[in-house]
Amino acid sequence: MNPEPTEPKVERSFDLERLVFFSDAVFAIAITLMAIELRPPTGLEPNTSAQLLRELLADWSHFFAFGLSFWIIAVYWVAHHRLFRYIIRCDEGLIWRNMVLLFFVALVPFTTLMMGEDGDLAAAVVIYASSITLLGLSGAWLWHHASKGHRLTLPDLEPVLIRRILYRSLATPIAGVIVILLAPFLGSVATLGFLLAFVFQRLLYHAYSIPGPP
Amino acid sequence: MNPEPTEPKVERSFDLERLVFFSDAVFAIAITLMAIELRPPTGLEPNTSAQLLRELLADWSHFFAFGLSFWIIAVYWVAHHRLFRYIIRCDEGLIWRNMVLLFFVALVPFTTLMMGEDGDLAAAVVIYASSITLLGLSGAWLWHHASKGHRLTLPDLEPVLIRRILYRSLATPIAGVIVILLAPFLGSVATLGFLLAFVFQRLLYHAYSIPGPP
Amino acid sequence: MNPEPTEPKVERSFDLERLVFFSDAVFAIAITLMAIELRPPTGLEPNTSAQLLRELLADWSHFFAFGLSFWIIAVYWVAHHRLFRYIIRCDEGLIWRNMVLLFFVALVPFTTLMMGEDGDLAAAVVIYASSITLLGLSGAWLWHHASKGHRLTLPDLEPVLIRRILYRSLATPIAGVIVILLAPFLGSVATLGFLLAFVFQRLLYHAYSIPGPP
Amino acid sequence: MNPEPTEPKVERSFDLERLVFFSDAVFAIAITLMAIELRPPTGLEPNTSAQLLRELLADWSHFFAFGLSFWIIAVYWVAHHRLFRYIIRCDEGLIWRNMVLLFFVALVPFTTLMMGEDGDLAAAVVIYASSITLLGLSGAWLWHHASKGHRLTLPDLEPVLIRRILYRSLATPIAGVIVILLAPFLGSVATLGFLLAFVFQRLLYHAYSIPGPP
Repeated sequence: MNPEPTEPKVERSFDLERLVFFSDAVFAIAITLMAIELRPPTGLEPNTSAQLLRELLADWSHFFAFGLSFWIIAVYWVAHHRLFRYIIRCDEGLIWRNMVLLFFVALVPFTTLMMGEDGDLAAAVVIYASSITLLGLSGAWLWHHASKGHRLTLPDLEPVLIRRILYRSLATPIAGVIVILLAPFLGSVATLGFLLAFVFQRLLYHAYSIPGPP
Repeated sequence: MNPEPTEPKVERSFDLERLVFFSDAVFAIAITLMAIELRPPTGLEPNTSAQLLRELLADWSHFFAFGLSFWIIAVYWVAHHRLFRYIIRCDEGLIWRNMVLLFFVALVPFTTLMMGEDGDLAAAVVIYASSITLLGLSGAWLWHHASKGHRLTLPDLEPVLIRRILYRSLATPIAGVIVILLAPFLGSVATLGFLLAFVFQRLLYHAYSIPGPP
Repeated sequence: MNPEPTEPKVERSFDLERLVFFSDAVFAIAITLMAIELRPPTGLEPNTSAQLLRELLADWSHFFAFGLSFWIIAVYWVAHHRLFRYIIRCDEGLIWRNMVLLFFVALVPFTTLMMGEDGDLAAAVVIYASSITLLGLSGAWLWHHASKGHRLTLPDLEPVLIRRILYRSLATPIAGVIVILLAPFLGSVATLGFLLAFVFQRLLYHAYSIPGPP
Repeated sequence: MNPEPTEPKVERSFDLERLVFFSDAVFAIAITLMAIELRPPTGLEPNTSAQLLRELLADWSHFFAFGLSFWIIAVYWVAHHRLFRYIIRCDEGLIWRNMVLLFFVALVPFTTLMMGEDGDLAAAVVIYASSITLLGLSGAWLWHHASKGHRLTLPDLEPVLIRRILYRSLATPIAGVIVILLAPFLGSVATLGFLLAFVFQRLLYHAYSIPGPP
C-alpha cells in the first residue's frame, strides 16, 4: 500500500473535530446496521446441521446485504478519512455537504438489502447504483467546497493533489451512471460496471497529467 | 452561507468534551434510526420492476419518516454545534438541560413516522409539532442557562450575539405553537406554519435592533 | 444545583479517554434503544384523532419504558461523568469493573420494558429493582477500586470527598434491596422504595460526619 | 491484575485517533446489539410471577446470546485497547486490517445467538468457533502489520513484548481450530476447547523463552 503524503502537523478546531466524530458515529451505525438483521432461521427448529445450513443459505440475501454494505461503507469511511486529513477548518458549507454525504451513507444498508432480495429487477439495480453514485458525488462536492482555496492548509497542499483527490472521488459516480444506464438491459450484471471506476481514475489522471500512484 | 464569528481559541474542559461527544452519539443514533425501518417489500416476491416500485411507493411513510427525521435532527445537530462553539465550561445545570434536549431528539423519529402514517389526523400533527417545539424550547433553555453570564467566554461574547442566538432558538418553537393551534383545522397542511419561523426570526431581530445577518 | 469542586487540571492518558468514550457510546445506545420500539399503532388505520390517541394509550408500556429507561440511564451517565472527573489513570481493574457497569446499563431498557408490560407481577419488579441495584453496586465497586489510593489525583482528592462519592453510589442499591424485599407484598408500589435512597444518603453522611451539601 | 508496562507518553496523529474512536463506536454497537433482542414474553399476558419466569426461561437463548456476545466483545475490545497502547501511527494497511477485525466483531452477536438457539448442531458450533477464530486471527494480523518495525514507538517497544502480544493474539485462534475439529463429535461441548487458549499461551511463552507474567 502506498504511504500517503506526510500528514500536516496542524491543530484542528473543536468544531471540525466534533463534525468528524459525529460522522464517524453515523458511519459506524450504518456499517453495523445489517448485522441486526442476521438471525438464525426461525420457524421449525432445524434438527440437523445440514438442515441449518440449508435454511441459512435460503436467507442468503441478509448475509449478502451485511457483507456488501459493510465493505461499501468501509470504503467510503476510508475515503472520508482521507479527505479529512487535509481539512483543518470548518464552515456551514462543509457541515451541510457532509450531512448530505451521511444521508446517502445511511441509505446504503437498505439499497444493498434490496439488491440481495430483488437484484434481478432493474429497478433494484438502478436504486442501488444511484445511492452509490449520489454518495460518491456528495463526497466530491464536499471536497470541492473544502479545497476551493480556503479550507485546507495553505500552500502546503499542492493543486495536483487536490485534483487527484477530486478525480478519485468522481471515478465511481461516473461508473455508477453507466451501471444505471445498463441496468434495464443487464440486470444485476450491470453492477460489474463499477469496476470501470478504476479505468476512469486512470483516464482522468492521464488526461490531466497527474503523476504518481493513485 | 455566512461565516460565523471567529471561534474563540480556548481550551474546553474534559467534562464538557465528554458531554458534547455523548450528545453527538445520541444525535447520530437518532438520525440513523429510521434507516433501520427501511425494508424492501416483504410478502410476495415482486416479479417486475414496476411491481417493485409500486410496493416501495405503498411503503412511502417509512421513507418519508427517514428523510424528514434525518433532516430535522441534522438541523438541530447543527444548532447544537453552533451553541457549543461558545460554551467552554460545564455544570450540572447544563448537563440536565442537555439531557432534556436529547430526550426530545430521541422522540423525533417516532413523531415523524406517525406523521407519515397518520398525518391526516390532527392528533398526529399536534404530537409532531409538539415534539419539534419542545426540542427547540429545550435548546433555548440550555442556551439561556449557559449564557447567563457564567458559562461562556467572558467579555468576548457580545450580548448582541447572545440575544441573537436566543431568538434564533425561539423562532421555531413560536411557529410550532401556531402549527399546534391550526392543526385541528388544517390537518397536515398546518405544518407549513413552521415556515413562519423565518418570519419570526426577522421580527425578533428587528424589534430588538440586532444588526447583521441571521 | 451545587457547583462541584474545581476539576483538577490534569492530563488524562489516551487509554482512559478511550475507555470513557467507549462507555459514552454504550450509554448513548442504551439510552436511545427504547426509541426504536416506539411505533405508531399498526393494524387498522385509525380514522380519527380520538382513535389514534386511544391506540397510542393502549401501547403505553413502550412509551413508559422509553421515558423511564431514558432518565434512569441519564442519571447513571451523570454519575459516571462525575466519577470520572476525578479518575485520571486507567488499569485493567478499572476497565473490567467498567465493563460490568456497562453490562447492567445495557440491561436497563429490557427491565424497564418488562415493568411497563408486567409491572403488577412481583417477578418483574424484582428483576427491575435488581438491575438498578446491581448497576449502582458496580458503580460503587468501580469507584472503590479507582479511589483506593492509586487511580485519582494524589493528595488533591480529600478522603472526605472519596467517602461522599462512595456513599452516594451505595444509597440507591441499599434502597433497591428494600424494594426487592417488598416486591412480593406491594407489587409495583414497592418501587417507591427507591425514594428512600435520598434518606440513606443523608443518614450515611450524618453517621460518617460528612459536611457540606450532597 | 498485572500492571501493564508504562504507557509511552507520545502524541498520536489525528488519523489514528479517528480510526480508534470509529472502532470503539462499532464495538459499542455490537456489544449492545443483542440487548435490542431482549423482550418480555409476548403472546398471552402472564398472570403470575411464576408464569412470567417460565416464559422468560423459555426465551433463554436471547439472554444467553446477549450475555455471551457482550463478554466476548468486551474481551476483544480490551485486547484492541491493549494493542493500540503501542500503536502511534496509522497507514492504509492498518486501516484495512482493522476493518477486517471490525467485520468479525459485527458478526459475533449473530453467531452467539445461533449457538443459543441451535448449539446442539455441529454447524452452529463450527460457525461460532470460526467467527471467534477469524476475529482473533485478524487481531494478530493487525498487530503483525503494526509491529513490523514501522508503526510502533521506536526502540522503546522491546521485541519480547511484541512477540508476547502476538502469541497472546494467536492462542485463542489456535484453540478455535481445535474446537472446529471437535465440533462434529462433541457438539456444543467442543467449545470447552477454548479453555485450551490459556494452555497454548503458556506453551508459546515457554517455547520462545518469554519471561514475565502474561
